[in-house]
Amino acid sequence: METEAMEMWLEKANVLIEALPYIQRFHGKTIVVKYGGSAMVDHELKKDVIRDVALLKLVGFRPIIVHGGGKEITSWLARLGKESQFVNGLRVTDKETMLVAEMVLNRVNKGLVSMMEKVGLKAVGISGKDGTVLKVDKKLSKGQDIGYVGEVKEVNPLLLNTLLDNDFIPVICPIGSDDGYYSYNINADDAACAIAKAMKASKLVFLTDIEGVYRDPADKTSLISEMTVPEALEFLDSGNVGGGMLPKLANCIEAIQSGVSRVHILDGRIAHSLLLEFFTNKGIGTAIIGDEEERYYVEQ
Amino acid sequence: METEAMEMWLEKANVLIEALPYIQRFHGKTIVVKYGGSAMVDHELKKDVIRDVALLKLVGFRPIIVHGGGKEITSWLARLGKESQFVNGLRVTDKETMLVAEMVLNRVNKGLVSMMEKVGLKAVGISGKDGTVLKVDKKLSKGQDIGYVGEVKEVNPLLLNTLLDNDFIPVICPIGSDDGYYSYNINADDAACAIAKAMKASKLVFLTDIEGVYRDPADKTSLISEMTVPEALEFLDSGNVGGGMLPKLANCIEAIQSGVSRVHILDGRIAHSLLLEFFTNKGIGTAIIGDEEERYYVEQ
Amino acid sequence: METEAMEMWLEKANVLIEALPYIQRFHGKTIVVKYGGSAMVDHELKKDVIRDVALLKLVGFRPIIVHGGGKEITSWLARLGKESQFVNGLRVTDKETMLVAEMVLNRVNKGLVSMMEKVGLKAVGISGKDGTVLKVDKKLSKGQDIGYVGEVKEVNPLLLNTLLDNDFIPVICPIGSDDGYYSYNINADDAACAIAKAMKASKLVFLTDIEGVYRDPADKTSLISEMTVPEALEFLDSGNVGGGMLPKLANCIEAIQSGVSRVHILDGRIAHSLLLEFFTNKGIGTAIIGDEEERYYVEQ
Amino acid sequence: METEAMEMWLEKANVLIEALPYIQRFHGKTIVVKYGGSAMVDHELKKDVIRDVALLKLVGFRPIIVHGGGKEITSWLARLGKESQFVNGLRVTDKETMLVAEMVLNRVNKGLVSMMEKVGLKAVGISGKDGTVLKVDKKLSKGQDIGYVGEVKEVNPLLLNTLLDNDFIPVICPIGSDDGYYSYNINADDAACAIAKAMKASKLVFLTDIEGVYRDPADKTSLISEMTVPEALEFLDSGNVGGGMLPKLANCIEAIQSGVSRVHILDGRIAHSLLLEFFTNKGIGTAIIGDEEERYYVEQ
Amino acid sequence: METEAMEMWLEKANVLIEALPYIQRFHGKTIVVKYGGSAMVDHELKKDVIRDVALLKLVGFRPIIVHGGGKEITSWLARLGKESQFVNGLRVTDKETMLVAEMVLNRVNKGLVSMMEKVGLKAVGISGKDGTVLKVDKKLSKGQDIGYVGEVKEVNPLLLNTLLDNDFIPVICPIGSDDGYYSYNINADDAACAIAKAMKASKLVFLTDIEGVYRDPADKTSLISEMTVPEALEFLDSGNVGGGMLPKLANCIEAIQSGVSRVHILDGRIAHSLLLEFFTNKGIGTAIIGDEEERYYVEQ
Amino acid sequence: METEAMEMWLEKANVLIEALPYIQRFHGKTIVVKYGGSAMVDHELKKDVIRDVALLKLVGFRPIIVHGGGKEITSWLARLGKESQFVNGLRVTDKETMLVAEMVLNRVNKGLVSMMEKVGLKAVGISGKDGTVLKVDKKLSKGQDIGYVGEVKEVNPLLLNTLLDNDFIPVICPIGSDDGYYSYNINADDAACAIAKAMKASKLVFLTDIEGVYRDPADKTSLISEMTVPEALEFLDSGNVGGGMLPKLANCIEAIQSGVSRVHILDGRIAHSLLLEFFTNKGIGTAIIGDEEERYYVEQ
Repeated sequence: METEAMEMWLEKANVLIEALPYIQRFHGKTIVVKYGGSAMVDHELKKDVIRDVALLKLVGFRPIIVHGGGKEITSWLARLGKESQFVNGLRVTDKETMLVAEMVLNRVNKGLVSMMEKVGLKAVGISGKDGTVLKVDKKLSKGQDIGYVGEVKEVNPLLLNTLLDNDFIPVICPIGSDDGYYSYNINADDAACAIAKAMKASKLVFLTDIEGVYRDPADKTSLISEMTVPEALEFLDSGNVGGGMLPKLANCIEAIQSGVSRVHILDGRIAHSLLLEFFTNKGIGTAIIGDEEERYYVEQ
Repeated sequence: METEAMEMWLEKANVLIEALPYIQRFHGKTIVVKYGGSAMVDHELKKDVIRDVALLKLVGFRPIIVHGGGKEITSWLARLGKESQFVNGLRVTDKETMLVAEMVLNRVNKGLVSMMEKVGLKAVGISGKDGTVLKVDKKLSKGQDIGYVGEVKEVNPLLLNTLLDNDFIPVICPIGSDDGYYSYNINADDAACAIAKAMKASKLVFLTDIEGVYRDPADKTSLISEMTVPEALEFLDSGNVGGGMLPKLANCIEAIQSGVSRVHILDGRIAHSLLLEFFTNKGIGTAIIGDEEERYYVEQ
Repeated sequence: METEAMEMWLEKANVLIEALPYIQRFHGKTIVVKYGGSAMVDHELKKDVIRDVALLKLVGFRPIIVHGGGKEITSWLARLGKESQFVNGLRVTDKETMLVAEMVLNRVNKGLVSMMEKVGLKAVGISGKDGTVLKVDKKLSKGQDIGYVGEVKEVNPLLLNTLLDNDFIPVICPIGSDDGYYSYNINADDAACAIAKAMKASKLVFLTDIEGVYRDPADKTSLISEMTVPEALEFLDSGNVGGGMLPKLANCIEAIQSGVSRVHILDGRIAHSLLLEFFTNKGIGTAIIGDEEERYYVEQ
Repeated sequence: METEAMEMWLEKANVLIEALPYIQRFHGKTIVVKYGGSAMVDHELKKDVIRDVALLKLVGFRPIIVHGGGKEITSWLARLGKESQFVNGLRVTDKETMLVAEMVLNRVNKGLVSMMEKVGLKAVGISGKDGTVLKVDKKLSKGQDIGYVGEVKEVNPLLLNTLLDNDFIPVICPIGSDDGYYSYNINADDAACAIAKAMKASKLVFLTDIEGVYRDPADKTSLISEMTVPEALEFLDSGNVGGGMLPKLANCIEAIQSGVSRVHILDGRIAHSLLLEFFTNKGIGTAIIGDEEERYYVEQ
Repeated sequence: METEAMEMWLEKANVLIEALPYIQRFHGKTIVVKYGGSAMVDHELKKDVIRDVALLKLVGFRPIIVHGGGKEITSWLARLGKESQFVNGLRVTDKETMLVAEMVLNRVNKGLVSMMEKVGLKAVGISGKDGTVLKVDKKLSKGQDIGYVGEVKEVNPLLLNTLLDNDFIPVICPIGSDDGYYSYNINADDAACAIAKAMKASKLVFLTDIEGVYRDPADKTSLISEMTVPEALEFLDSGNVGGGMLPKLANCIEAIQSGVSRVHILDGRIAHSLLLEFFTNKGIGTAIIGDEEERYYVEQ
Repeated sequence: METEAMEMWLEKANVLIEALPYIQRFHGKTIVVKYGGSAMVDHELKKDVIRDVALLKLVGFRPIIVHGGGKEITSWLARLGKESQFVNGLRVTDKETMLVAEMVLNRVNKGLVSMMEKVGLKAVGISGKDGTVLKVDKKLSKGQDIGYVGEVKEVNPLLLNTLLDNDFIPVICPIGSDDGYYSYNINADDAACAIAKAMKASKLVFLTDIEGVYRDPADKTSLISEMTVPEALEFLDSGNVGGGMLPKLANCIEAIQSGVSRVHILDGRIAHSLLLEFFTNKGIGTAIIGDEEERYYVEQ
């Protein structure tokens, strides 16, 4: 064999070997991936994410996928001649909107299941209503009733553990039921965060359409790789945090404070960002950690 | 306490005691209920069916629910300006129809889950795509390609057993995937029959909108209570069997021949028909059995 | 089918459906039934009780039966020319009396086992000596030694759990052994109470020959349906409690205070009283409960 | 320490070491001991047998005890003014006799349980009615109906295995029930033999009041130590076999032919005969084995 | 991030993704690695092999390591003034040689254990004597007794399964015992082959100091990548097979015929050859397979 | 049978019966035996010890063997022309000495394994490096670095429990590894003591070449049979304790204080001392116990 070819192979081997300590760190651990944004739209990115999840499962992780589908809901509502309305960023959800949302989200859900099974995974698509995984209270928007919009009040881990223990990957769409067993739409970030806490997950990952958190949004060189909770709290107070980022950061902090070890805001537009995050020392996006001791990225 | 009241209570007790041998007979056995027709439309009947299933579960049966939703699909297609087309009783299912069908069936599915959880059951709504429960081949209608209409070629019992063993009731909508993991619509009767066979169910029950099988459809007094497989085969040959009944009867016979002990065609328009069938010696509708020895109804 | 017949069947179904919440409430729970009085003498009542127990078992309860047999002991002693002697209601039990008591109680025990197996139950008849289920100390009658009469000092739950976990129903006759492994007769009410406490039973039921507790024994309309422990204690102090009822009520209170949820004094002379108590909202006899919150009978 | 004392201890150690291969041979194996005769009457012998059983249990065997009690039945019948009647060696058992027999045998049973628990064993006394361990048909005496005398037609091993698997020693009195769940007296030797076969026991031991089988009953030096089944069959044909020995030998042969490895007729009048048989190379009494290859006693 | 760096990372991700189907193929499967030659001498190669094994374990394989140590034995014998003697390639092994061989091999064994634990694995070093894993018969060299040289006659898989089931990696040195429990030296290739067969391994890998099998040893371009058993048998007959390769090839063929899926002769001098073989489509060395259908390498 | 012979057998039976309470006391308990001295050199004693261990295993104990091998190390070092050097009783252990020690100890280890398997035991020979059973820190001799001599800082019980739970007997040679995974020699007494503590052993036994502890070493009649920890501490202070005995006694006291119930210093030169200690009321050597309440030897 020629030396050149040999070197290429050796390099490949080294990549695998480099992954070793990362695999050991999370072996047998539960990780929650909030799946959304471009990574859920672009077909190639979608296939990349699915294969990344497959690898996570195979090397011994216990992945749970939580996804959204806001754009599809809006589009189907439009086809049905119904305009989408938002109050403070929350969709006003009357009975028919909820009906359509449930139809759409469950189909998106089953679509992901098929893609995962295509690469050999055993996946099960559920909503938060199945096994009463997500129990909700009605969520008000600054005191205003905007319909069937819920906030998680309780997570029942029984079904999720049953599935994980039997090597199925739960794929969850963020619909829950209230005490009267009516359906409610839940923000997918919130659902992922609540599930990560209840399942005592080691990692919670948000696949987003941003590069991460910038110290100064105007300065593209100010991306923050790692941030302790105290730093994040301080940052929230600084007034530099943009609208969309505010609830996400709050979610991250709450998750860490409830026992999740690391929360990541990843750029889902980069191919295999999930995998690079888990298996290399290349930090992509921003990680929220408990304190200084948990830092481990080397700047590159 | 007055004697009159006492007698009423004694009678109640006797009903429960009468149920004893029926409960013993099916304790720990798997039963598949094809749920459809009026029993799925009328709200009171719906609540009755759900409570019947709850009772079956509590006394130790392992129920699996398979449901359809043809009318809802037609209605939503209409709202989207799309006419439903049928060839030989099978819906012509192009890509968009399949998309809508999947949305609608999954929502119907989750609606049933909520109703079951409301009475205290632990239910999980899945389609045949989850855990690859239903693998299909394309089904032709007399040689003609009518799109994404599938016939079951394989049932994977793993997910169903995992759920049943952990006291969850599987609620299944009849969508499966082919080898390329594309979604296909399946006739709900066929799906129920395939699942009953694969799960080695003791009973398969069809909740229908007919009173049962009539020896002479014109003669309302000719309802057949019990029918052995040889009798059923002979009956099929007689030419007296109406259109809708033909495939259903064929399904029944096939199920019995694959090891299911009893198959019932029940009148779902009668309140608690499921329960009366299971817990009393009142035969409702028509039962298909293997042979003479399995008869047990006393004419009343 | 005629409407009239149909209505009858519907009513039957409704009785079963009414039982649903009661079954759910006690599913998987341990219940102890002290079996005695007329219900153990009258052949029809006996058969009723056995079938009631069978139903309890089938719908998922874990029943334990504790029985007495005082009358049979007296009768056999008489046949052997030995007069029965009582001091303060306790049988004076010399060595030979104990020998006869042990013979008689164990036979009664095995008789119950046969009746239970006849209706398809798996029953095992034991005394408190087997698996050292009941360890006793000698019980004095107001300071006086009356022979081999014991009071329970320790319950070993191992054998009972082994049997229950393997779907056997333990049928227990109230004989225990002291530290020297000598046999002692135990009051069956006391034995049932001690076992209910040790097994963390949800319910303890006394099948008796009275209608329940009367606020005023002379007034047949003053039957108490439900009584909290504070009420029961007050009632005990009132001086209105008859001789036989005193220790029974004390037992009830002690059981509740040790964690049993409900204790019932049922009229075993009413057919299926056990079943009516468990599966309907018809309160028969008197229930002792912890506090106001546990009331659930509607007056009828 | 003086040499003399030391030698004594060394000898003790050697006895234990000699037991090693015998313990290894039967570790984890089920053995059935038919307990009867003097060993059940003489108090010292009784204590010896119990301790022998304790040792068998502790070194890993799974012992099952089957006992009789004919003499006690006769004596109690006499006290009740009822004469015992025998036809061809079988007790004529009318309804009342059966009642008394059941009382007496169950008390003997519980007496053994107490003795076993006194040396630290976990024992459970059952009759063949419990858990339907012994199902019987009526046994005729040369065609004559002699009442409730049964012969085993089926052994249900479930309860026995449940007890053995949880480290309880089953102590069984030979009463079974017929299809109508009536009680029947069974010959204890027959019961032990049937249980040994059903439990696939490695050894079946009869504790008797004879020294073993003599080739010539008149010649006390003609005791047979080991006998293959062919030899036993030949011996049965020889006409030299005494009355009581005939059914016992037949039982032994049947047991061997059903898969029991060794059947022993031991002299229960010798202290610790059970233990000497199991743990030393001292053959006591007569062993029935399958064929020549299973011989292992050295003549001494 | 600069595009260049990004591309590098993407490439890394792709290497991991490429490994996916290979990981899926062998997940949960047992693989036996015969470890020897340069890969056991060169310190860097040694570390590479160990990390390769760590990765195999983490992604769900069940690896078993079998190693030799001939050179170390020769060297220690020399230090003790004892010359090594060989007959037909087998070491003449007198009692003292065996003693030294056992000392040396066990130390090599424990050295490997330490290296494996250093990278976080749970390893246990055993010889074939432990748990009687390897029982041997004396092996003659063309009829000549050459001492304590054994050939495997039986493999006891119990200890190996106990260790694998509890996530320990067995590291085995090729010493076995005969029926008299004397120690024997075994050829490591033979030991690995026997273990692979007994453990129903999916793969057996020989780490060697050759590039693989050449169709024509003189022609370096004639390396055979894949070879079916019929081809291998034909090749053996061709007379082109060199001395050292003969028994190895015979071992390979025997393993395949006993149910091992693939046997590999790898070049252990290439870094990470083990990993490249398992996780990439780069075939290194020569694979022996059952038949044409199992080919999967693409020529490169 | 003659009376004389019969008496001999009865005596044998009594020895076994006498063992009963001792077996009951330790059934299922873990015991650690430090094996060394003459009992490891003399062939007959060796066989005795092995059979004693076999008996302990068979009657339900969980034995762990820890052995040394100092004399063999010295002898092999001599053969290699290397003189052994000691500082304060500890072997100066340079790299080569450690290499030889590891070779020698592991061979001694496997020799014991073979002997144990010869009597039918399932044994597994490991060093403290396997499964990281023994993690060490470097041990200084009065502040002086004497090379690879370690003291146990942590015991990982996982491998030992895995082996014991699967009925293997662990045989351990006292080599451990430090944080850099270098090998260290450990004093076998210390290793046994550390393992007994970590495994929560009930008994720790030192097989030595002394008769036990003498109150006055010069007075052979002053052997101490039993000693509470307070007595032992007082004795240590008395100045009457000889050099070799000091660390051993300290080990004993430490073990008791860490939860081991009894520690024994046995005379391994007496045949079956282990067995006599465990199965008879003959105290051999000296026992260290917690307090007065644990005394149980009767002076003889």
